[in-house]
Amino acid sequence: MENIKVIIWGLGAMGSGVARTLLQKKGIDIVGAIDMGEKVGKPLFEVINQSHPHKINIPVGTTDDYIKANQADVVIICTDSYVKGNFEKIKRVLENKMNVISSAEEMAYPKAQNPELAAEIDRLAKENGVSVLGTGINPGHIMDLLVLVMTGALVDVKQITSKRINSLSPFGKAVMEEQGIGLTPEAFNQRKAAGEMAGHVGFEESVHMMADALGVQLDALTTEMQPIITEVDRKSPYGEAKAGQVAGVDMSAKGMVDGKEFFTLQHPQQIEPEQVGVETGDYVIIDGSPNVNLVNTPEIEGGLGTIAMLVNMIPKIINAEAGLKTMIDLPIPHAILGDFRDQVNEAKRPFK
Amino acid sequence: MENIKVIIWGLGAMGSGVARTLLQKKGIDIVGAIDMGEKVGKPLFEVINQSHPHKINIPVGTTDDYIKANQADVVIICTDSYVKGNFEKIKRVLENKMNVISSAEEMAYPKAQNPELAAEIDRLAKENGVSVLGTGINPGHIMDLLVLVMTGALVDVKQITSKRINSLSPFGKAVMEEQGIGLTPEAFNQRKAAGEMAGHVGFEESVHMMADALGVQLDALTTEMQPIITEVDRKSPYGEAKAGQVAGVDMSAKGMVDGKEFFTLQHPQQIEPEQVGVETGDYVIIDGSPNVNLVNTPEIEGGLGTIAMLVNMIPKIINAEAGLKTMIDLPIPHAILGDFRDQVNEAKRPFK
Repeated sequence: MENIKVIIWGLGAMGSGVARTLLQKKGIDIVGAIDMGEKVGKPLFEVINQSHPHKINIPVGTTDDYIKANQADVVIICTDSYVKGNFEKIKRVLENKMNVISSAEEMAYPKAQNPELAAEIDRLAKENGVSVLGTGINPGHIMDLLVLVMTGALVDVKQITSKRINSLSPFGKAVMEEQGIGLTPEAFNQRKAAGEMAGHVGFEESVHMMADALGVQLDALTTEMQPIITEVDRKSPYGEAKAGQVAGVDMSAKGMVDGKEFFTLQHPQQIEPEQVGVETGDYVIIDGSPNVNLVNTPEIEGGLGTIAMLVNMIPKIINAEAGLKTMIDLPIPHAILGDFRDQVNEAKRPFK
Repeated sequence: MENIKVIIWGLGAMGSGVARTLLQKKGIDIVGAIDMGEKVGKPLFEVINQSHPHKINIPVGTTDDYIKANQADVVIICTDSYVKGNFEKIKRVLENKMNVISSAEEMAYPKAQNPELAAEIDRLAKENGVSVLGTGINPGHIMDLLVLVMTGALVDVKQITSKRINSLSPFGKAVMEEQGIGLTPEAFNQRKAAGEMAGHVGFEESVHMMADALGVQLDALTTEMQPIITEVDRKSPYGEAKAGQVAGVDMSAKGMVDGKEFFTLQHPQQIEPEQVGVETGDYVIIDGSPNVNLVNTPEIEGGLGTIAMLVNMIPKIINAEAGLKTMIDLPIPHAILGDFRDQVNEAKRPFK
């Protein structure tokens, strides 16, 4: 069987990480890399800042260069967080009869907030005999999939608390800016009021995914965003918050079922949490039969975790039936240390 | 859609627990219950020691009474731990065009130790257009599936340690006898030498499942069984071990890949572990990129956990393509709190 063929659309932190990871894997080739502006025309290995003397170094190109019928088995889209931002790109890939994996948080369960576009993506995928998946570390794993997997061992579930307490310190300037690190509380609240603080994208998707899998009716879903104001000066490689300034964002969500808070999601993100005694980690706490009291410390790093999910789901989306899929439709995610071709049903490959 | 129809074959602790759980669920009926000896002819609710005034109380019957073509959507077999012990039963169900879920530990990955029988089950299932799954808490979830799900967020894996430290105290006389509680070390070793100590069944299945999913070649797999000799007197409701006697069984396994110990499984089971400061729990420790350091305390109770997995996988095995399936082929397990019919593709139902 020929190597599995992948095109990466978007070479920011996620797309570049996917490229670096695929270059370590067996039985899989990067046959296209798409970006805009000054990256176009440069060799891929230069853009991702690596050297691979024995591998083919394709040039970064435009959509027209690489999105052509049956050019690859999967196109991995890493451009933005939203279904609306992804839609035209996904449509173009599907019309060229290739599968899609997207890093967009909203694509993890697109019908949660974009049911019409989700239905249209499903229709286009089926029409072209290929499939589409949105995934990542969160949504896609820690705060939804892992919770559901734990409920698999439960005969009843009364309440679910899913917490992800992470450090923003490993992230760069863009994330510091995005999350408002170093702002005064007033400036944070102004930006929030103007709708310019995104915080974590994905609570709606995680909660709807869990509710649909469990078969419970969501009466209401509310999300909240509060600044984490530090009482001590904090400094990370790319961020700084003096006492009284914003050191992070505390995101939370509540999903109501039968008038009770059934889903509780807490996701505080901040620089240097250790400095104030906050232990980072992923927590799944379920009041059920039996109970679950699961902790993973420290948290699975978001960047690497998302890159891993995008790469590890490649065989699953190739093998899937045509249509829009989510993490609850496909077999479980797992690392792939062997040859990717061993995990792929050749009859399902769109690459010709 | 008519309610989903289930037959339970074997009304020991697991089968009775499945019956009790199904009676709490929506959109699903027990239409058959099979056992032997004095249970036959008794009403099911009497055998499981419950009262359900508004539900139909079928009599416990024989195989001939209930295994007939298309009588149910799924037959849940809870009789023994082995592929060989299950084979004739599974064959008979498949020939009657019904899906199978088995609690037999070896059925969780039957090709690990019984490749010919596994191939024959797969052939029979495909010939009859139905499917077969073995599952439970372990193998089936904690020491294999959960480990794999965590590797989904990893770009590389160097070593996996999976530990399940559990208490035998909640179990009854049969388990105390089976695990040698209260024996002298000499008596334990005699029984072990005679091949009469089963201990935990499932390490081969868990390790082969993980190796195949990850795509690594297993060079060797060794398992070990040692008595846990207590230094203090211990007493549980059904078991007793004086100082110097056997309080449990310490099971472990090593899976070698490329000459290194890649898989380390540890599963000590004992009465009253708290008395000697042993904290029970489920542990997944992965040396990878990134690392995983996951703990669930206390452990998911084995009995309830297995019952839950058997029940929660019902829609997945109905919807599956024909053939022998394992937990790595099917969508993720999760609890079902709503109507079972909402999760089933009617076109796939064998019940007529």
